[in-house]
Amino acid sequence: MRRVKIVQYGVGPIGAEVARYALKKSGLQFVGAVDIDPKKVGKDFGEAVGGPKIGVSITNDAKQLLAKTEPDLVLHSTGSYLKDVKPQLLEIMKSGADVISTCEELSYPFLKNPAIAKELDRAAGRIKVTLLGTGVNPGFVMDVLVLTATGVCQEVRSVKSSRIQDASCRRLPFQKKIGAGLTPEEFRLKVADGTIKHVGFQESIAMIASGLGWKLDRIDETVEPKLAENPVASEYLRVEAGQVAGVNQRGIGIVGGEPLIVLNLQAYLGCPDPREWIVIEGRPKIDLTVKGGVHGDIATASVIVNSIPRVLNSRPGLMTMKDLSAPSAWFGELQNFVQRKL
Amino acid sequence: MRRVKIVQYGVGPIGAEVARYALKKSGLQFVGAVDIDPKKVGKDFGEAVGGPKIGVSITNDAKQLLAKTEPDLVLHSTGSYLKDVKPQLLEIMKSGADVISTCEELSYPFLKNPAIAKELDRAAGRIKVTLLGTGVNPGFVMDVLVLTATGVCQEVRSVKSSRIQDASCRRLPFQKKIGAGLTPEEFRLKVADGTIKHVGFQESIAMIASGLGWKLDRIDETVEPKLAENPVASEYLRVEAGQVAGVNQRGIGIVGGEPLIVLNLQAYLGCPDPREWIVIEGRPKIDLTVKGGVHGDIATASVIVNSIPRVLNSRPGLMTMKDLSAPSAWFGELQNFVQRKL
Repeated sequence: MRRVKIVQYGVGPIGAEVARYALKKSGLQFVGAVDIDPKKVGKDFGEAVGGPKIGVSITNDAKQLLAKTEPDLVLHSTGSYLKDVKPQLLEIMKSGADVISTCEELSYPFLKNPAIAKELDRAAGRIKVTLLGTGVNPGFVMDVLVLTATGVCQEVRSVKSSRIQDASCRRLPFQKKIGAGLTPEEFRLKVADGTIKHVGFQESIAMIASGLGWKLDRIDETVEPKLAENPVASEYLRVEAGQVAGVNQRGIGIVGGEPLIVLNLQAYLGCPDPREWIVIEGRPKIDLTVKGGVHGDIATASVIVNSIPRVLNSRPGLMTMKDLSAPSAWFGELQNFVQRKL
Repeated sequence: MRRVKIVQYGVGPIGAEVARYALKKSGLQFVGAVDIDPKKVGKDFGEAVGGPKIGVSITNDAKQLLAKTEPDLVLHSTGSYLKDVKPQLLEIMKSGADVISTCEELSYPFLKNPAIAKELDRAAGRIKVTLLGTGVNPGFVMDVLVLTATGVCQEVRSVKSSRIQDASCRRLPFQKKIGAGLTPEEFRLKVADGTIKHVGFQESIAMIASGLGWKLDRIDETVEPKLAENPVASEYLRVEAGQVAGVNQRGIGIVGGEPLIVLNLQAYLGCPDPREWIVIEGRPKIDLTVKGGVHGDIATASVIVNSIPRVLNSRPGLMTMKDLSAPSAWFGELQNFVQRKL
């Protein structure tokens, strides 16, 4: 039984975490890796992600690599915005490969980017490949897990999902991304220029609404600083009282004039009770908590790699997590999870 | 757009709850109902389940009904054991209808009933219909929800799922089924003759193992009484201290000599902290709680009816919950959730 040939497209922090997990899997064979960072190009891909050499060099020429190696599947992790990554996704699909991407806007692109969604879906259908955008959020904790929890409900009156994270144990770029250590004024400037913002609420809310069959009037989003009441510190930085410890972002899906889908993301240093918390007002009411929360980087890599057999089994087209079979980890030979003969 | 013609096969307490929910759905049309209870035969089906008349009488002649009405889908709820319901399932499929059944052993029949599973799968494939066994348990809280939670994991070392229920608010047959009010001796006799037992642990454990790619050595099950420490009472019965308040059933899936899948079902009168509780030891660890738990009868009806579009969208064959797209409630027109033109 042959192995599934895969390429890692984008070897940043998330792409490297994806690759480290994928490298442990039976049935996958990395035939290439792409990154534009001159410090990475030419390096052995295995070494670049912190493991042993695997004899595959990182290249910045995606087109040539795809033509030469003809991968079955590409794990893509280069950006959050569809307009930036669309040419890459089209090029990958053109080579005949399925794609699983961490691009947040790809997780449910039909509301915010309907034209690109249609273009990608048509291309995937024509070439007979499957395209999926996923990750832990968007892609799992604030959308698919919410929808899954409604599976036991006969009525759903409203949905609220809160992701409450202690950023102390996350990497420095994450801590900077949430504004830790800034003054409130600096924070507001970075919100205004779009630097501080989780991308994905539009997608998660649209996926929940579509899954339930609710028609969205609109989505409102706010991004506020979470100020430190007392000094807090991480391995990397220190925040004085009154400075910004992190972010509190809310996304509200308005349905029939009412705020029926509420997403609430808090990520800050020193958060005392990190958790994922889903409340579905309905029949029955569901009050679901994941104690301690789910670690973002690890879980995004998990969701990407765990989706591989489900994407290989999928019909062609632009798919979302709610279209594929129920998520799950898988261990052992990939072939055991794939319906077609590899 | 035409409505999907459905038949309710089995109008006991669960079948009636299923029907009450299904009757509220747009896009479904009940064309018949089957039950063998002489007190129900001939009655209007809508009235029999506690609603207004719908002009469909309950019949005890399934064969004639299926031939006459040619339903698209049958909701089946007559028994827990495959050998009992197999002839019914084959007859329904022969009429060309998809089937969603509450039969516990159908939820994942490949381990305990491999021959019947193969026979049903072949019949479904030949006739090009889809067959699904599901419900809240087995079918959701102790298997699919567990697997879904592993979707964010890179390692899974063990899985434990506990269902801890206060039986005080459940119907009398349920309270009797768990042995409430018996002496410990009476309880043990009823365990010995098979009267007191949740059917489904074998199926849930096998589904989890298969989903993760783990090879089961065997499954061990124990059924113990939960004794009342103080007198407790429900609407229907009173339990003295030292008598049986309910049941504590454990199912343990042994993998590589280790108890890696542990299911723990406690249902008793006066339970102080009812909940669903899933702990996955892995990377990351997942500790998930549904506060208050999920009401069994309501949720089983939810899962059955919420599965309708997913079954209509499925390829033919004997499917399980882990094969179909991620669970979710759906509201509004069924057509919005079905890929083919109805």
